[in-house]
Amino acid sequence: MKCLIIAAGKGSRLRQKGGCKPLVPVLGVPLIERVIRAAMEAGVDRFYVVIGYQGEQLGNFLAHLARRLDVEITSLVNDDWAEENGLSVLKARDILDEPFLLLMADHLFDPKLVQPLIRLTLGNEEIVLGVDNDIHNSLVDLDDVTRVQVEDDGSIQCQKIRDIGKGLSDFNGFDTGIFLCSPAIFEALERSKEKESDTSLSGAVRILAAEGRAKAILLDGFWIDVDDPQALQKAEQALLKQVSDKANDGPVARYLNRPVSIRISRYLVRSRLTPNQISLFSFLCSLLAAGLFALGGYLALFLGGVLAQFASIIDGCDGEVARLKYQSSDFGGWFDAVLDRYADAFLLFGLTWHLLAQEVNGWILFAGFMAIIGSFMLSYTADKYDNLMRERIHGGAGTGLRVGRDVRVFLIFLGAVLNMVLPVLVLIAVVMNLETLRRVGVARNG
Amino acid sequence: MKCLIIAAGKGSRLRQKGGCKPLVPVLGVPLIERVIRAAMEAGVDRFYVVIGYQGEQLGNFLAHLARRLDVEITSLVNDDWAEENGLSVLKARDILDEPFLLLMADHLFDPKLVQPLIRLTLGNEEIVLGVDNDIHNSLVDLDDVTRVQVEDDGSIQCQKIRDIGKGLSDFNGFDTGIFLCSPAIFEALERSKEKESDTSLSGAVRILAAEGRAKAILLDGFWIDVDDPQALQKAEQALLKQVSDKANDGPVARYLNRPVSIRISRYLVRSRLTPNQISLFSFLCSLLAAGLFALGGYLALFLGGVLAQFASIIDGCDGEVARLKYQSSDFGGWFDAVLDRYADAFLLFGLTWHLLAQEVNGWILFAGFMAIIGSFMLSYTADKYDNLMRERIHGGAGTGLRVGRDVRVFLIFLGAVLNMVLPVLVLIAVVMNLETLRRVGVARNG
Repeated sequence: MKCLIIAAGKGSRLRQKGGCKPLVPVLGVPLIERVIRAAMEAGVDRFYVVIGYQGEQLGNFLAHLARRLDVEITSLVNDDWAEENGLSVLKARDILDEPFLLLMADHLFDPKLVQPLIRLTLGNEEIVLGVDNDIHNSLVDLDDVTRVQVEDDGSIQCQKIRDIGKGLSDFNGFDTGIFLCSPAIFEALERSKEKESDTSLSGAVRILAAEGRAKAILLDGFWIDVDDPQALQKAEQALLKQVSDKANDGPVARYLNRPVSIRISRYLVRSRLTPNQISLFSFLCSLLAAGLFALGGYLALFLGGVLAQFASIIDGCDGEVARLKYQSSDFGGWFDAVLDRYADAFLLFGLTWHLLAQEVNGWILFAGFMAIIGSFMLSYTADKYDNLMRERIHGGAGTGLRVGRDVRVFLIFLGAVLNMVLPVLVLIAVVMNLETLRRVGVARNG
Repeated sequence: MKCLIIAAGKGSRLRQKGGCKPLVPVLGVPLIERVIRAAMEAGVDRFYVVIGYQGEQLGNFLAHLARRLDVEITSLVNDDWAEENGLSVLKARDILDEPFLLLMADHLFDPKLVQPLIRLTLGNEEIVLGVDNDIHNSLVDLDDVTRVQVEDDGSIQCQKIRDIGKGLSDFNGFDTGIFLCSPAIFEALERSKEKESDTSLSGAVRILAAEGRAKAILLDGFWIDVDDPQALQKAEQALLKQVSDKANDGPVARYLNRPVSIRISRYLVRSRLTPNQISLFSFLCSLLAAGLFALGGYLALFLGGVLAQFASIIDGCDGEVARLKYQSSDFGGWFDAVLDRYADAFLLFGLTWHLLAQEVNGWILFAGFMAIIGSFMLSYTADKYDNLMRERIHGGAGTGLRVGRDVRVFLIFLGAVLNMVLPVLVLIAVVMNLETLRRVGVARNG
C-alpha cells in the first residue's frame, strides 16, 4: 500500500522558531515521523510526502528517516504551499495510479484506525474518508475541524458522504484526515479548481460526494489534529495515557509508581537519554540505596528506602520512554530485567547487612537469604506463570493479584522508613517463596 | 498414513516368563509401544496390529495404549501365528486398500529412518523395502538377519531388489523390516503361498522382485531386530547412547556426570519412579548436603560435598528417564529448573554458613552473596544466551565453553572435599558474575 502525506503548509499556529510544523516534536518524536511510523505499523510500505514551506529542512529529515526506518520515502515539492492543500495532493497525480492512503502530516492516529481502511476494496472511481462520529470527542477542536454529514446507504462497511466543510451546521461526524483514494481524486481536484475555483481537498470531496462517489467509514479510536499548542498538549497527554494503560502492572506500579513515572517520562523524552541509560541510572540508584542500608543508622536507612522507591519509579521510565520514542528493543527489556534482579538482590542484602551489623544472628542471615532467593524465584518463574495465566484468561478464568517487583521494592521502602527491617525481610521471604510454590502448583495442574 | 504391525509370533528366543515378545520391556517400555511411538513420531496416525500368540494379553495392552496415546489401534487376530509371518500380513487384506507402512513388532528404529519412506510416491503395484547397506553394522546379527541384494536401476530415490532371503551368500544390504507396501503385497503373498508353498513375507517380496516391482530405499540410521537377549542388550545400549548424545551438556556433565547417570537411569527406568520424583530426590539430597555444610567440621563438609556431587549426577537421571520412557513434559523440565535454582542457592548458603560459623567476617558474607546471585543470574540469562548462540551457530560461529550448573556443583564439591571453601566461593562469585556480564555484552551486540 502506498501512502501520500500532505506536509507542505506553514502551520503558523504551531510552528516553532526556525522549524516547520511537521518537525514539531510530540514527546520527542517529530509529528511527521509519528504519522509515518503509525502508517508503517498499519501496513504501508511506500511513502510520498508533499513538502513546501521550509521544504529543504523537511526533505533532509525525511531522507534520514527513510534510512533509519529502512523504508522508501519520496519528497514531492509543492511551491504553491501557501495555497489550499488540494494543490499538494495534485502533485502526486502522475505518480499514483492505483488506490492509495492519503494522510495529513499533522494528524496523529492509532495504527489500528487505519487498518480497516486499508483492507477495503475500493471502487475504481471512489474515495473513502475516515469519519469520527463521536461528535463529543474531547480531542476535537470544534472551531477548526472539518465537519462531515454522512448517511447510511445500506452497505455494510461504508456510509455515504452528503456534505463536508468547516462551516457545516448540520453534521454528524468529523473528517479525521485519513483517506483511501482512487486516482479519481485528482480529476475531482482539477474540476473543483476549474469550476469552483476551490483548490481545497474538501472541495474535491464535495464534488465526488455530489456524484455519490465519496464514501465514509466510521473510525472509532485515537486521532487528533495537532494544529495549535493546546492540541499538542492534548496529543501528548493521550499518548502518555496510552503507554500507561497498556503496561502490565502490579498494584503498586499501577497506583503509585506509574502516575509519577509517566510525569517524569514526559520530560525524559525531550532529552537524549536512551532507555538503557535510564535502566542503568535506576540500577545505580538501587545500588546506592543498598549501600545506604549497609551503612547503618536510621538516617541512612531512611534515605536508602526513599532512594530504593525512587529507583523503582524510575525503573518504569525506561519502558515508557522506549515506547514513546519507538526505541523498544528485545535487548532493552532483557537488560532491564537483568539489572532489576541484581538491584533486588543488593537491596535485600543491604537490609540483611544492616541487621547483622547490629546483631550477629543466624536467623537474620537465614531470613535475608530466603528473601533474596524468594525474590529471585518469583522472577525466574514469572515468564512461565504469565504465559499460563494468559492462556487461562483466554479460557475465562481470572488473573489474581500480581506480586512482582513493584510490591517487593515498596515493602523494602516501608521496612526502611518505618525502621521495621526484620519483619519486612521475613514477610518478603515468606510471601515470595510461598507464591513461587503456588506457581509450581498452578503450572503442574495447567 | 496407515501402518500394519506384525506382532503375532511366539518369539521364543526373547519371550519372558508368562509374557509375549512384543510386551518385553526395553528400558521400561514394551517393544511394541516403542515401535508404535516411533511410527507416530514419523507421521503415522492409524495402526493395525496383527496379534496371535498370547493375543488376549497383547490386545488388552494395545487397547490401553490406544487410549493413553490418543491414537486408533485395531487388533487383527491371526490364529495361524505359528506359521510364517506372511499369513499375518494377509489378515489385513480386506482392510488396507491404499499404500501402508508395514513394520515388525520387534524391530526398533529411529523415526527419522521412516520419514523418507513415508514421503515416497509409491507405484500402484509396487512395494519398497528399507534396506541398510552398512554390512558391518554391529547391531545386526549376521546369522539371523534377512539379507538383500539390491542394484542401482538409475532412479534417484530407490534401487531395485534383486534377491532377498536369510541364506543369501551374495548380498549388499539387510532387510530392516520397514516396508512401504501397496496392496499388491497381498496378491504376491497369495501367489507365493499357492505356487511355492512359501508363506513368508520374504517369499512374496521375492516374487515381486522377479517382476521388478520390489524396490529398496537405503536407510542410514539406528534400527535393530530385537530377537534375543543379546540384541535386547544392544538395543538398550544404543537407546542410552542416543539419550546421552543428544543432551546439551557442559564439560563436567559430559565427561563425569552423564556416564554415571546413564548407568543409574538404566536401572531407574525399570522402576515406577517418575522423572519428577527423581528431580525431587536430587533436590532433597542437595538440601541435605547444604545442611551438612552448615553443620560445621570437615567430616560433614566432606560428606556434604560428595552428596552434592551425587545429587548433581542424579539431576541428570530425571531427564534421561523422561526421554527413555516418553515421559518428557514441559512442566517436568521447568520443575527441575526451579528445584535446581533452590538447590544451588542452598548449597552456596550452606558453604557461606560453614565459613561464618568459624569466623564472622563481612567479606565472607559478601563472597557468599555474590556467589549466590552470580549463580542465579547465570541461570536467569541462560535462555536468552542459548537462543542467541543457536542463531550464531546457525550462522557458523563457535559456541564456546558452557558454564552451567554442572561446573558450579563440581566446584562446590571440590571446595568441600579439599576444604577450600572460601577460594571456591570467591571463584564462583567471580566466574558466574563475569560470565553474566559477558552474556549481557554478547546479547547487546547480537
